[in-house]
Amino acid sequence: MPAWPFNGGVPILNKDMTMCISLSARPSNNGTRFHNYLYEQLGLNWIYKAFAPTNLEQAIAGVRGLGIRGCAISMPYKEDVIALVDEMDPSAKAIDSVNTIVNDAGHLTAYNTDYTAIERLLERNDVPTDSSVLLQGAGGMAKAAAAALRDAGFGDVTIIARNEATGSALADLYGFRWRAELGGATADMIINVTPIGMAGSAEADSQSFPAAAVEAAEVVFDVVALPPETPLIKAGRAAGKKVITGAEVATIQALEQFVLYTGIRPTGQQVQDAEEFVRAE
Amino acid sequence: MPAWPFNGGVPILNKDMTMCISLSARPSNNGTRFHNYLYEQLGLNWIYKAFAPTNLEQAIAGVRGLGIRGCAISMPYKEDVIALVDEMDPSAKAIDSVNTIVNDAGHLTAYNTDYTAIERLLERNDVPTDSSVLLQGAGGMAKAAAAALRDAGFGDVTIIARNEATGSALADLYGFRWRAELGGATADMIINVTPIGMAGSAEADSQSFPAAAVEAAEVVFDVVALPPETPLIKAGRAAGKKVITGAEVATIQALEQFVLYTGIRPTGQQVQDAEEFVRAE
Repeated sequence: MPAWPFNGGVPILNKDMTMCISLSARPSNNGTRFHNYLYEQLGLNWIYKAFAPTNLEQAIAGVRGLGIRGCAISMPYKEDVIALVDEMDPSAKAIDSVNTIVNDAGHLTAYNTDYTAIERLLERNDVPTDSSVLLQGAGGMAKAAAAALRDAGFGDVTIIARNEATGSALADLYGFRWRAELGGATADMIINVTPIGMAGSAEADSQSFPAAAVEAAEVVFDVVALPPETPLIKAGRAAGKKVITGAEVATIQALEQFVLYTGIRPTGQQVQDAEEFVRAE
Repeated sequence: MPAWPFNGGVPILNKDMTMCISLSARPSNNGTRFHNYLYEQLGLNWIYKAFAPTNLEQAIAGVRGLGIRGCAISMPYKEDVIALVDEMDPSAKAIDSVNTIVNDAGHLTAYNTDYTAIERLLERNDVPTDSSVLLQGAGGMAKAAAAALRDAGFGDVTIIARNEATGSALADLYGFRWRAELGGATADMIINVTPIGMAGSAEADSQSFPAAAVEAAEVVFDVVALPPETPLIKAGRAAGKKVITGAEVATIQALEQFVLYTGIRPTGQQVQDAEEFVRAE
């Protein structure tokens, strides 16, 4: 591990380091570990640290005033930050939601790499755009998934969401159908964008789609990242389906942030090592 | 060096680190090395980094919005920042100049630890307050020295400065005398607060007071910190005088910043080690 300058074990931060940060009401340690690990591996004189801001507007002023290169945006700031940037990349504009800001000499451009990650994964897994899709959920991430589906050319999409107001609004926005309950519906691709199956949630042990829907599908996609193997993903694998995991979404969105900030695309091996480093905490 | 968390040589920054920064148009690496070294020695989960801000007001907004604990202020922001803080400590108010900001849950208090350091050194060296003093210079640091002298009770002080406007204004402010040229003047304590003798200056090799003034003095004080042994300090030592160096001022002012930020006072040995670490770059 030669890149980072040391002196008898002391990590010598220096004045010339480029800094990236994240803003979140309840930061996890994942971004800080992922980015710093890759900086070290690639010999970049950069640092990354998560912040829980006391005031979003002042924090973004600080990104400008301190010349902070990149800034990840998490809950609950993804919409509020739109008014504070100079330019919206199509990835953020498509869903009116920002998770990444790049500072080019004071000009702040906003991106959404969740959208980008879902787009990439649909492509990479060669999901035919004439597939029928059941998309369960209506939050910010469901919006990213719906927009990515629409922009990739998927037309036969049904949003499943109990709340009619948000569910039908989301469906209308992208020209999709809405229904309140899954019932016995099946489709070529099933996508979960609810917290069902998420570690720590009330429904951590529940499977977000019933066995019949898994059985009938070609592709099983769960946006829940933790655990990487949710009950839905396990069921998909057991049934021999093509699966796309939330852990893949999380990795690709973080990687795309890294590329936007540094202009460098790490190798697949380096990304995999960084992911292992994140999980090893 | 056990305190900082490592993983196979990678310094693992983490989301919970408290951050302190400095703002300067042309940052040196000294503060970054001094503070990070002591954080590591004391097992503090803190980081420190120098910034050259693109905009002072936005940078201070960032200190508030990101919850940055401490912020050193250097040239050319020491006066402009006054309008941006909530409270002026007497050390900063005495000279209308700020070199340190402490953020207590969004309330910014401004200090001047240069003033504090000079005050401490006069005390520590038992300089009698009825000593006559020649103070050469009229910039921001001369103001800190003049205010510290006045507040310590020194009355017989002459400011030496070619520029009559700034020199006599400084003298008037503290009830001291002013003269344009040193001429053959002598005093019990001579203090240099000009760049004469400073590494890299046009007068790096010059001695800021003539041999006769050194000979006649009891105390020789040079505020120039680099090199630690200026021509004036060397002459003072050679003549067997009590000397006070700019390096001592720099160390004490940085130490007082550290104490204001962390609430912890390192041992003399730790401070000495940190200074050696700064110089070892």
